[in-house]
Amino acid sequence: MRAYDIIKKKRDGGELSDGEIRAFVEGYVRGEVADHQASAFCMAVWFRGMSDAETTALTLAIRDSGERLDCSGIDGIRVDKHSTGGVGDKTSLVVAPIVASLGVKVAKMSGRGLGHTGGTVDKLEAIPGFCTMLDKQTFERIVSEVGIAIVGQSAELAPADKKLYALRDVTATVDSMPLIASSIMGKKLAADDDCIVLDVKTGSGAFMKSVDESRELARLMVEIGKRAGKKMLALITDMDRPLGRTIGNTVEVVEAIETLQGKGPEDLTALCVALATNMLYLSGKGSMDECERLVRESIASGEALRVLARMVEAQGGDADVIAHPERLARAPFARTVVAPRSGYITRVNTEDYGTAALLLGAGRKAMEDTIDPTAGIVLAVKTGDYVRAGEPIATLYASDESLFDAAERTLLAATEIEDTAPQARPLIFERVE
Amino acid sequence: MRAYDIIKKKRDGGELSDGEIRAFVEGYVRGEVADHQASAFCMAVWFRGMSDAETTALTLAIRDSGERLDCSGIDGIRVDKHSTGGVGDKTSLVVAPIVASLGVKVAKMSGRGLGHTGGTVDKLEAIPGFCTMLDKQTFERIVSEVGIAIVGQSAELAPADKKLYALRDVTATVDSMPLIASSIMGKKLAADDDCIVLDVKTGSGAFMKSVDESRELARLMVEIGKRAGKKMLALITDMDRPLGRTIGNTVEVVEAIETLQGKGPEDLTALCVALATNMLYLSGKGSMDECERLVRESIASGEALRVLARMVEAQGGDADVIAHPERLARAPFARTVVAPRSGYITRVNTEDYGTAALLLGAGRKAMEDTIDPTAGIVLAVKTGDYVRAGEPIATLYASDESLFDAAERTLLAATEIEDTAPQARPLIFERVE
Repeated sequence: MRAYDIIKKKRDGGELSDGEIRAFVEGYVRGEVADHQASAFCMAVWFRGMSDAETTALTLAIRDSGERLDCSGIDGIRVDKHSTGGVGDKTSLVVAPIVASLGVKVAKMSGRGLGHTGGTVDKLEAIPGFCTMLDKQTFERIVSEVGIAIVGQSAELAPADKKLYALRDVTATVDSMPLIASSIMGKKLAADDDCIVLDVKTGSGAFMKSVDESRELARLMVEIGKRAGKKMLALITDMDRPLGRTIGNTVEVVEAIETLQGKGPEDLTALCVALATNMLYLSGKGSMDECERLVRESIASGEALRVLARMVEAQGGDADVIAHPERLARAPFARTVVAPRSGYITRVNTEDYGTAALLLGAGRKAMEDTIDPTAGIVLAVKTGDYVRAGEPIATLYASDESLFDAAERTLLAATEIEDTAPQARPLIFERVE
Repeated sequence: MRAYDIIKKKRDGGELSDGEIRAFVEGYVRGEVADHQASAFCMAVWFRGMSDAETTALTLAIRDSGERLDCSGIDGIRVDKHSTGGVGDKTSLVVAPIVASLGVKVAKMSGRGLGHTGGTVDKLEAIPGFCTMLDKQTFERIVSEVGIAIVGQSAELAPADKKLYALRDVTATVDSMPLIASSIMGKKLAADDDCIVLDVKTGSGAFMKSVDESRELARLMVEIGKRAGKKMLALITDMDRPLGRTIGNTVEVVEAIETLQGKGPEDLTALCVALATNMLYLSGKGSMDECERLVRESIASGEALRVLARMVEAQGGDADVIAHPERLARAPFARTVVAPRSGYITRVNTEDYGTAALLLGAGRKAMEDTIDPTAGIVLAVKTGDYVRAGEPIATLYASDESLFDAAERTLLAATEIEDTAPQARPLIFERVE
């Protein structure tokens, strides 16, 4: 079937067959379907949407467009957690060691940060010596022995997604539910996990600004995963404020360690416990209550922290910093941002907070940019807190003092201070099974 | 403004400004807007449509993307007639000489045939020696002296349309009202006429299959032309059966000459009189009744036929064939197609009739194909006629006998013969001012 006919069928509201979708994606990767046909197709999908069957077919075609991870050499259940991206989200560094300490394997491929969102791989690389590029044998050995390894995504993973995403980015077709879901799940399913817990963020720092959109994305990704034979669960969680008190790489590693030491911020700790509990539950480790008890014990006993240290050591990193995070390199310059008036922090634009960290050097505008691991933000107050005029809102860290002004302006403009306290907002909105 | 923002604005249902549309088209012609952005834009237009103001801006940007004809060297009112394309439509060869014989100038640029539709330039080139590529001076001189000249479209005319059309053709974005109207009118307005009469075809052989669609296209093109300062009129005319009794090039030239001799088929004669009358009326030559009288006199006196002969001579053609059309080269082979049963011709698929002529060599599948001027079809019966089993439906002409089988099959499959006579269908549905 010709690309033209597939575009036209979707444009006219028809439902594409698995074969049609696969032929289109395969043709696109081979260069037989032109960019201008793929973008017209994406725009038709933007308007018409896709059925769950179509979205699943698109996801599987993306998954199969490149290399797939084969973890058959690793014994035991493998679970993964995937977040749709947020600001200050260091949960992977916390939940993966927890579940690994409880006998469930985590063979994780993670991304790098882009724009206002951070990436787990960047955070891990803030640890001296930590290597996120392992050959297959080493990766399997570490997962088997330690229970966990985290590597960067292979360039050969889901090339159809890379090509489609670059195209969607310049043709105003990014914000389409089936295209978002198939992009995330296409990459996720190229890994070889048994269970996947999705953390679908919602709010001003998330891709999905409303709970309704987040629910639909969660439902769709859970459905796709199930159709692909995975055990699936999703939590819809708040990203209307940064998670925890840190945004950046070194600062987030420190906060993750503190959370595994049992002294992390309340919101981050609560979310990590919920995610780890659901990961264990999905892996068949018992009831939700039993799993939660196991998770809390793993933190309290220090076992999860020891697993993190073992992973860092196995991946070539300086495991000493896990026990002594104060030894991690710090930025040479700091600036305190103070409240311009007294009042409650009623709302922050979380995406702009992420952008402020980016401006300090903690993130990338484009994929080829380099980042400064020491740059970042530590928040003194968060949404709902009361602050007096002149008291600190946050401390900024950078390797170049000239970066502070723009970051401070961005942070202040993104912070609303008013006389009345805001309504409380839940941390976890819904669980989607 | 970035191409991305323009695509997104249209996608989200916004109304683009003249400046935004012009920047997009100019950027596209210069190669700064990528094909994949232009196709996403066209698909967004397919879904959202365009306001008349937007369609006019798009039309003028297409008009201005290349060379424009300047007829300021020609005295007097200039009128053009443009058809949206059909099967057996040789009206230009008839109406242009008529109005020129009555003192209104016709400085006409015409297209070539593609697919099931024919083109005036191909038909004229069936006359030995006729040249459709004239330099500006010669073109102006012939229009001034004879009152009429017909040339092919310059390659430099509206390059934005060529580029956009090629793109739309492979991305399922051809059948969008604003894109169709701006494509036709962008080229039309690059010529330098005072008045334009549009012949918007409707039915199975036309691009617009329904009268409603044809009416909307007519209204839109009349509106665009008026906004560009032209006197405009449109007739919505039947293309649910071929016009006249011939489909091809030589056979259509012969039928056009017969019509100017006052012995053409009824439907072709009636439509030519109506079109010529409206062209004269729009040029200010009097009331509709007065104009129709002038048209009929020009045919009856032979003056229109003499103008055609003068134009053929001025453009290097053998004017002798106008008086003696039987001297035109005929195809070496003919086959008579007979009715498989007795009954009324209740319906023909006119597009397939055009395809049958194409299969005989009279048309082109792709723009680079060459055509056989002698190939074609002469119909013995038309919709509404009664035919007995074994009696002729049509005669096919070709230079290669092996082409007959496929053409005959196509023609027969496109012809419905039933026991009851069909309802009569008007030749002219509406007049849009």
